[in-house]
Amino acid sequence: MSTKLRAAIVGSTGYGGVELIRFLLAHPYVEITSVISSSASGAPIADGYPHLNQIVTERLDGIDIELIRGKADVVFLATPHGVSIDLSPKLLDAGLKVIDLSGDFRLKDGQVYEQWYKHKPAEASYLDRAVYGLCELFGADVPGAQFISNPGCYPTATILGLAPLAAKRWIDLKSVIVDAKSGVSGAGRGLSQVVHYAEINENFLAYKVNRHQHTPEIEQAIGRLAGEEATITFTTHLVPMTRGIMSTIYVNLKQARSEDEIFDLFRSYYEGRSFVRIRDKGKYPGTKEVFGSNYCDIGLSLDSRTGRLTIISVIDNMVKGAAGQAIQNLNLMMGWDETTGLTFTPVYP
Amino acid sequence: MSTKLRAAIVGSTGYGGVELIRFLLAHPYVEITSVISSSASGAPIADGYPHLNQIVTERLDGIDIELIRGKADVVFLATPHGVSIDLSPKLLDAGLKVIDLSGDFRLKDGQVYEQWYKHKPAEASYLDRAVYGLCELFGADVPGAQFISNPGCYPTATILGLAPLAAKRWIDLKSVIVDAKSGVSGAGRGLSQVVHYAEINENFLAYKVNRHQHTPEIEQAIGRLAGEEATITFTTHLVPMTRGIMSTIYVNLKQARSEDEIFDLFRSYYEGRSFVRIRDKGKYPGTKEVFGSNYCDIGLSLDSRTGRLTIISVIDNMVKGAAGQAIQNLNLMMGWDETTGLTFTPVYP
Amino acid sequence: MSTKLRAAIVGSTGYGGVELIRFLLAHPYVEITSVISSSASGAPIADGYPHLNQIVTERLDGIDIELIRGKADVVFLATPHGVSIDLSPKLLDAGLKVIDLSGDFRLKDGQVYEQWYKHKPAEASYLDRAVYGLCELFGADVPGAQFISNPGCYPTATILGLAPLAAKRWIDLKSVIVDAKSGVSGAGRGLSQVVHYAEINENFLAYKVNRHQHTPEIEQAIGRLAGEEATITFTTHLVPMTRGIMSTIYVNLKQARSEDEIFDLFRSYYEGRSFVRIRDKGKYPGTKEVFGSNYCDIGLSLDSRTGRLTIISVIDNMVKGAAGQAIQNLNLMMGWDETTGLTFTPVYP
Amino acid sequence: MSTKLRAAIVGSTGYGGVELIRFLLAHPYVEITSVISSSASGAPIADGYPHLNQIVTERLDGIDIELIRGKADVVFLATPHGVSIDLSPKLLDAGLKVIDLSGDFRLKDGQVYEQWYKHKPAEASYLDRAVYGLCELFGADVPGAQFISNPGCYPTATILGLAPLAAKRWIDLKSVIVDAKSGVSGAGRGLSQVVHYAEINENFLAYKVNRHQHTPEIEQAIGRLAGEEATITFTTHLVPMTRGIMSTIYVNLKQARSEDEIFDLFRSYYEGRSFVRIRDKGKYPGTKEVFGSNYCDIGLSLDSRTGRLTIISVIDNMVKGAAGQAIQNLNLMMGWDETTGLTFTPVYP
Repeated sequence: MSTKLRAAIVGSTGYGGVELIRFLLAHPYVEITSVISSSASGAPIADGYPHLNQIVTERLDGIDIELIRGKADVVFLATPHGVSIDLSPKLLDAGLKVIDLSGDFRLKDGQVYEQWYKHKPAEASYLDRAVYGLCELFGADVPGAQFISNPGCYPTATILGLAPLAAKRWIDLKSVIVDAKSGVSGAGRGLSQVVHYAEINENFLAYKVNRHQHTPEIEQAIGRLAGEEATITFTTHLVPMTRGIMSTIYVNLKQARSEDEIFDLFRSYYEGRSFVRIRDKGKYPGTKEVFGSNYCDIGLSLDSRTGRLTIISVIDNMVKGAAGQAIQNLNLMMGWDETTGLTFTPVYP
Repeated sequence: MSTKLRAAIVGSTGYGGVELIRFLLAHPYVEITSVISSSASGAPIADGYPHLNQIVTERLDGIDIELIRGKADVVFLATPHGVSIDLSPKLLDAGLKVIDLSGDFRLKDGQVYEQWYKHKPAEASYLDRAVYGLCELFGADVPGAQFISNPGCYPTATILGLAPLAAKRWIDLKSVIVDAKSGVSGAGRGLSQVVHYAEINENFLAYKVNRHQHTPEIEQAIGRLAGEEATITFTTHLVPMTRGIMSTIYVNLKQARSEDEIFDLFRSYYEGRSFVRIRDKGKYPGTKEVFGSNYCDIGLSLDSRTGRLTIISVIDNMVKGAAGQAIQNLNLMMGWDETTGLTFTPVYP
Repeated sequence: MSTKLRAAIVGSTGYGGVELIRFLLAHPYVEITSVISSSASGAPIADGYPHLNQIVTERLDGIDIELIRGKADVVFLATPHGVSIDLSPKLLDAGLKVIDLSGDFRLKDGQVYEQWYKHKPAEASYLDRAVYGLCELFGADVPGAQFISNPGCYPTATILGLAPLAAKRWIDLKSVIVDAKSGVSGAGRGLSQVVHYAEINENFLAYKVNRHQHTPEIEQAIGRLAGEEATITFTTHLVPMTRGIMSTIYVNLKQARSEDEIFDLFRSYYEGRSFVRIRDKGKYPGTKEVFGSNYCDIGLSLDSRTGRLTIISVIDNMVKGAAGQAIQNLNLMMGWDETTGLTFTPVYP
Repeated sequence: MSTKLRAAIVGSTGYGGVELIRFLLAHPYVEITSVISSSASGAPIADGYPHLNQIVTERLDGIDIELIRGKADVVFLATPHGVSIDLSPKLLDAGLKVIDLSGDFRLKDGQVYEQWYKHKPAEASYLDRAVYGLCELFGADVPGAQFISNPGCYPTATILGLAPLAAKRWIDLKSVIVDAKSGVSGAGRGLSQVVHYAEINENFLAYKVNRHQHTPEIEQAIGRLAGEEATITFTTHLVPMTRGIMSTIYVNLKQARSEDEIFDLFRSYYEGRSFVRIRDKGKYPGTKEVFGSNYCDIGLSLDSRTGRLTIISVIDNMVKGAAGQAIQNLNLMMGWDETTGLTFTPVYP
């Protein structure tokens, strides 16, 4: 045990936190040494999550930098936005590695953060140090980094679906429309009427139309890949299911391409990347096909009538959209194989 | 009873058929005199639909034109596509009124039908006689008609969401993208793996991407309203719920408009129409808000960043998207108030 | 309009309240003149329930006895337990008719109320005046009554399933085991973790095992029918669905009976009662077969191996288990046909 | 690879088969060398199960004893009942180890099998060789066995809930009533109306009341533990969810016991068994707390009013109720730690 990397999880009583626990328990090189919650400190974590009975017997710690420094090498932050802004600098200054699952360090421009998150941004020097860990695209930045900003759920599905086209500049960036749908777990464990069972069961909702805070994160990544500014249309919907995100993405091609060219582009772009799976022509992934796993599955359809390309990209929002990608970043950070501890087969049916 | 209009329902053992029964039972001027099924003739309908026990005690009739002529004044066809092509002409020739819920007579151009439905089209003379009954838009054609082609579920939600803009020619018809989502009942009662419970529960799927047969129906109606040809992008998805359709529609405006102008347009266009409800700015309808009812609820968002308009339009696919609109057509046909027998409050929660 | 009975609904912003609205809107002899909420007074009800847009345009009233007296003839209380204890006496003293959907006046013995509800009971004189309105069994008490205590959801399904056997004294009352399951709407609109979507979706839970407050209500009614004291075992479970209750009831017969005898008993006991439907031998009702309607459907199976009888009784908890039965009580109270405004066909699928 | 145990799976295209694949892929000492299907032989398994894309690239084999003998050491049968009766003897005669997940070899008495399964039973000599693999109870029989009959899903949950009491003879076996509820995946992938999405969603159903074929399996095991014949009442229900079984079990104690005595009995009986978790007093497990994992969680409530004990026992029907327990049996058979490859944390939420 003593040779394992010691991990602490701040925000252990949220859904992101317990999903990190599920994955870290299966990781051969890591041990969880502290589960941390500001709200439930002192109680056994299994009190609030009985599925962890006899699996995680630890009591929850409070947030205490010295305590964390004594117990852990790496800290995962699975906290609501706003918390990491103050906490991450302290953890970094204490010499800890930090993987932040919140949105606080994803946007390089503090003003943009403030505009979309309605919260003062992090200090610029720390923003600069945060490596945006979308592993398949920017994974080269991760090895040796001390501080990772883990991508958002919608951005992960969407950016992976757009990346080959953006990087090759095949698409008109002004034409990008992202119609995204998410299971309810993305809203977290906090109670609210919109995710009260009797309200959202047998219901399908749009929310935050044209004002979701993941919009600039997608634009930043696409812009970086394409080398030009991107302004997209982005709509989010809630699906009456627990897990899963689908981004249905519409783009206009700058010049006519055959469907074969497009498939070739995607296949070669993601060659050798274990967690991106391109479906065959005429096949489209359902969210259940990645349930519980770290895969991002992508289907493509070029409409000969309109010349427009439709991209279907799915992930499990709790895994590739949160905890799984965080572990993938840890693997890259530490120089381990990126699939270590992540080779879960999707749970089907 | 003798003064009531006598109605027969062909396809009574499908979901469209039983929903017609639910509505006709509540209609003050109509009585159901024959429930007809080609497959289960002779059995009590409640054998296959126990919720009708003690409510509908009739046995199913087979398809027999003479029998129908003796029993009914109006015939509803809730049959799979292909059936009405042969059956409707016979019923019409027998002097019966016909309301066809299938797709067989919706497309005026037989070649387009054949291309999308993969089935030979109806005879042109009968196609010409079919009145396309999207009541709020083309309801003026219905009074006195003998033969109504009831619109499809996706087209109803989508066309109502686009109509004011198309009729006013405010939008670039080439820019229209429709991202549609439907509950599972739209697939009918016929067994198939995709709607097997364990496959579609906790799943969200795209299907028939760029090749759904409702595409030309939407284009035909939008083109008729705008007076120019429309070619749209149309994607359909399955939601793990039983009822409800949402069309999320993206359009580029031909010239800059304020959000207020757009709301004013929609409100004035649908003024006095009981079944279309425009939500206030910043509010978007969920499908559950129309569950079991004949409403079409519409929300609007103009994105100042992109100048693009997003339209959210929801219906209950079984009601405004099928049986409810068929009754509404009957009401118009007969000169009754269009809401007769249709004032069901949505079932919530 | 002026000749209609004027109804006020206290607790209009709860699920019981909006279900009352749905039914009263369809009632030919009643008009809703006041929707009342202590928490949201002043706001249009459609703000919180957008499905009521353009249907109910009233603003919510606060609780004010004089105002209610001016506006209404009958008051429905769809309030959490504890509220009616104080409010009903005031409304009664003001000369209003009261139909109380809460549990406050169901138990004739105040001590039993206090023991199970953990709340001080109502004053004895008002308890005595409350008529327990399980219409099919005790409906004879209702005509002309001023004050109805509307039965609970679990008790309605359970007591109707047991009544013929209890009344005939065919069963050993000590042997009665009730395994009950409910959709989530029974928990109301108040937020709580157990009915947070991501917690209860894809989950099946037992709760309040051996301590549900509906236990003594069932025992009181069965005891009254049988003329002897009943002590039952009662377990409640949550089903991941919105509406519906099933009580699966196990009883030992005092002496051997044939299955035919038992079916005959049930059929004759409920002869002429529109809302109780006995299934044929070998058929068992699902909750969906009564969805949205006022039916109670019952299936029966006598096990020749054990001599034990299994009774399956289903209702829609929001209708026959709450608002629907309240209307049925109003009908009986006023001398109207008990089915007036209640002939909704179940919504299927 | 060459030192791993080679496993073949017959019935790989059923839900039991793909769940075996998920678990065997995670097993350190086993490799899957043949996925077998009588119906889809020749096709890649990922064609029917896209979640396996890039994970299992093998094509399906047909059923061919010689081929299996060449490729495998152990064969899992995840086949509909009736198939194993003929197939298992051939595989055993070929010297293979066999773990049969079907019901064909669970009942020692062929006549009882015929009566409940309506199918001729297996040959007595092979019935005798089949070891009933309910690991926590009869696991001592498994090491070194060649042929395991893996328990049914309902029996696993039920027998584990009753075993301590039966073994100690604390309960009146005639009083046992089992009210069981299952997610829909238990019905398999074969299409049928009852598990058509629009039929079972928002529905709760009882089925096979007093005639489910798992009844004698439970009676056989309880009888064996208690040393006397057991005749139970057993009812099965379908829950609108994919995975999970709950057995709510009611028993009369032969003599009065305190709740503490009962908890002590359960805790000591299952001491050291990793996969059985006894909840604390007043806590009851939900099915979601074992989702995707091999746990059986048990809650207990003694009703002081009736003296009756209620036992709540939950499993994931696909795991402890099928594939997981099959792997657990393999582990015991091979002398490996019984938890090898099975330490999956439940997927929550």
